Amino acid sequence: MRAAVMRGDKFVVEERPMPKPGAGDVLVKVRACGICGSDLHYFKHAPETIELAAKLGAPTDEMKRTLREGPILGHEFVCEVVEFGPDTQKALKIGDRVASMPFVLRNGAPVLIGSTPEVSGAYAEYMLLSEALLLPIDADVPDDAAALIEPLGIAVHATNKANLTGEEIAVVVGCGPIGLTVIAVLKARGVKTIIASDLSPKRRELAKAMGATQVLDAREQSAVTAAGAGKVVIFENTGAPGMLGRIVLEAPQNAKVVVTGIAAGDESFLPMVAILKELSFSFVIYYTPEEFAEALQLIKAGALDWKKLVTGHVGLSGVTQAFKDLTDPETHAKIIINPWADA
Amino acid sequence: MRAAVMRGDKFVVEERPMPKPGAGDVLVKVRACGICGSDLHYFKHAPETIELAAKLGAPTDEMKRTLREGPILGHEFVCEVVEFGPDTQKALKIGDRVASMPFVLRNGAPVLIGSTPEVSGAYAEYMLLSEALLLPIDADVPDDAAALIEPLGIAVHATNKANLTGEEIAVVVGCGPIGLTVIAVLKARGVKTIIASDLSPKRRELAKAMGATQVLDAREQSAVTAAGAGKVVIFENTGAPGMLGRIVLEAPQNAKVVVTGIAAGDESFLPMVAILKELSFSFVIYYTPEEFAEALQLIKAGALDWKKLVTGHVGLSGVTQAFKDLTDPETHAKIIINPWADA
Repeated sequence: MRAAVMRGDKFVVEERPMPKPGAGDVLVKVRACGICGSDLHYFKHAPETIELAAKLGAPTDEMKRTLREGPILGHEFVCEVVEFGPDTQKALKIGDRVASMPFVLRNGAPVLIGSTPEVSGAYAEYMLLSEALLLPIDADVPDDAAALIEPLGIAVHATNKANLTGEEIAVVVGCGPIGLTVIAVLKARGVKTIIASDLSPKRRELAKAMGATQVLDAREQSAVTAAGAGKVVIFENTGAPGMLGRIVLEAPQNAKVVVTGIAAGDESFLPMVAILKELSFSFVIYYTPEEFAEALQLIKAGALDWKKLVTGHVGLSGVTQAFKDLTDPETHAKIIINPWADA
Repeated sequence: MRAAVMRGDKFVVEERPMPKPGAGDVLVKVRACGICGSDLHYFKHAPETIELAAKLGAPTDEMKRTLREGPILGHEFVCEVVEFGPDTQKALKIGDRVASMPFVLRNGAPVLIGSTPEVSGAYAEYMLLSEALLLPIDADVPDDAAALIEPLGIAVHATNKANLTGEEIAVVVGCGPIGLTVIAVLKARGVKTIIASDLSPKRRELAKAMGATQVLDAREQSAVTAAGAGKVVIFENTGAPGMLGRIVLEAPQNAKVVVTGIAAGDESFLPMVAILKELSFSFVIYYTPEEFAEALQLIKAGALDWKKLVTGHVGLSGVTQAFKDLTDPETHAKIIINPWADA
C-alpha cells in the first residue's frame, strides 16, 4: 500500500507492506483523514518531544524506532471495512464506513495509532482498527464531516471539563480547529455569550460562523479582559508562549481555564494571583468514548458547520505542501487527506 | 483599647480608640485569635504584596494607608458580644460567644477584616463584626477550638474543590496548619489513603495524629510519587519555590491538584506535561459561608483534634515573639493570641 511517511522535513509517499489484522482487528481502507495541530507539532518538534518524554521517565525506545523507520501519522479518520481478522464479531459488513478513537487494543491495552511502526496511522491507504472500538458512520454523514469527529470530541471534552450551566460567559482564546469546534459546542450547549479572539481575520470570520457572539483581534484587545467579571470560562487554545501567565493576570475572580493549547517549553505564572482569584485550570487532550460518540451525534444534529472548517483536500503526495499551507491561517483551517485521490 | 499594631519588623502594643458600631454592626470583645500563615506572609512581605496588587491594577490607596497607620491583623477569632449598633436584630445576647467569616459588610459589600484602619482585626481587645455574619458558638466549643474554625473552613473548601468520592488516594504536601486541617477533613470525609509529607519531624508527627495513613520525610521521598497511579488528589500547601513545576512532573495521569500554598514569586512548569496527563489545578484561599459553618460542625463532631494543633498562647505583648517562634516548625503549629491575658 501507499503511505505518506514522515521523513525529516517532508512526507514521502512510499510503498509499505499491507497491514495484517490480528485477533480482534479489522483491516480498513482510509477514505479521509484530517491533519491535526498535534501532527504539525510532532512534524516540527519530534526529537524534542522524545527528549521530553525521556526526561519524564517514559520509555522512548518505541518512539525512537518509529521516528527512525518513518512515522505514519493520522488519527482523525473515516474508513471502510475491508477484512475482519480472527476473533471478531463481524456485526458490521465489508464496505461499512467507520470511525474510531485513535487507539487499537493490544493485549487489552490501548496503543495510540501512529505511535509504533506496527500501529500505523491514516496517512496511508490502509490501516488496522480494533473492532471493539468501531463507530459506524451513517450515510447522511459525509467523509469530511466524519473526519472531524476526533477534534470535535476534544471540544466536547474541553467544554465538559468546564461543567457548563449555560449561564457562563465563555472566552475562546485562539480559533484554530480546536477553538472553532469549542465555539460550536458552546453554542450547542446554549451558552449565550461567546467571546473569541485570534490574530487572523479569516479565523475570526470562521469564529463568527461557528457561533461566537463577539470576535476580537487579539492584537488589539484581550478577549479575557473583554469578558469582564461574572461566571467566566476561558478556553486557551493557542499554546502561545506567555499566554498562561497573562491569563492568570487578566482573568476575573473564580474563572475556570480549560487549556488545550500545547506550549512547547516552560511557562511561568504568579501562583499568588491565581490563589487570590481562586482560579482553576484543566489541561485536556483526550476524550472519553462517550464524548467521542457525542461528537458524532452533534455532527448528525447539524451543530457543526463543518463545510466551513474544511478548507482543502489533498492526496498522499500533497501532504508536505498541506503542512506548509496550514501554517497560514488566512487560507486554511482543516485540510483533509484523501489517500486514494492520487492513487 | 489595646492592640498589637504591626510596625515594620515587630508588633507594638498601642492604645487605640474604641471602635464604634455603625448600622448592622456589633462591637465584640476578642477572646482568642489564631496567627495565620498569611499574617506571617504579610508581616514579611507587605510592601511586595502591595506592589503586586498595584501591578495587577488593584486600588492600593487603602492598603498603603493601612500600612502607614499600622495594620491590626487577626482574622481567626472568637469573640463575645459587647454592644449592638443601630439597625440590628439583637437575636443574640450581650456576652454570647460568636465567630464570623473575616468580613464586615459596608454598603452591602464585604470588606476584609484588617484591610483598612477602620476595619481592624482581632490582634486587639475589641473589634467590629457584622451582625448578619455572626455564627454563635455553643458552650461545648472552647475558645481555642473556635479560633480554628477559619483555617478549618479553608480545609473544607480545599477538599470540596477536589469533589471527593472517598475512593481517592490523597496526597498532602506540606503539613502546616492548613495541611494538618486538610488531613483531618480528608479523614472525616472517609478517604482511606492519606499520604502526607513535611520536612519537619514534629509536623509529620502531627500529620499522623490528624489521620495521615502514611507520613514521609519530604527530603527523602516525594509523597506524590509514593501515591503511584490511581485516582490521586494532591494538596500543595507549601508554596515552596519549584513545587508546582515538580508536582506537574511527578503527578500521575488525571491527578487533581488543589493549591493552598502561597508562592511569593513567579513559578514555572511544563504545560505540555500537564496536558498529556490531563492534570487539573484549583487555587484556593477562601470558603463559602456554608463551608465556614461546616467547619464549626466538624469541630463539634470531634473531627479535629484541635488540642494537638494549638501549641502556644500569648497576650498582645507576646505577638512579636510568637511570629518569631512560628518560623520553627519543631516547636509550634498554631499560636493563639488572648488579647486580655496581659491586660
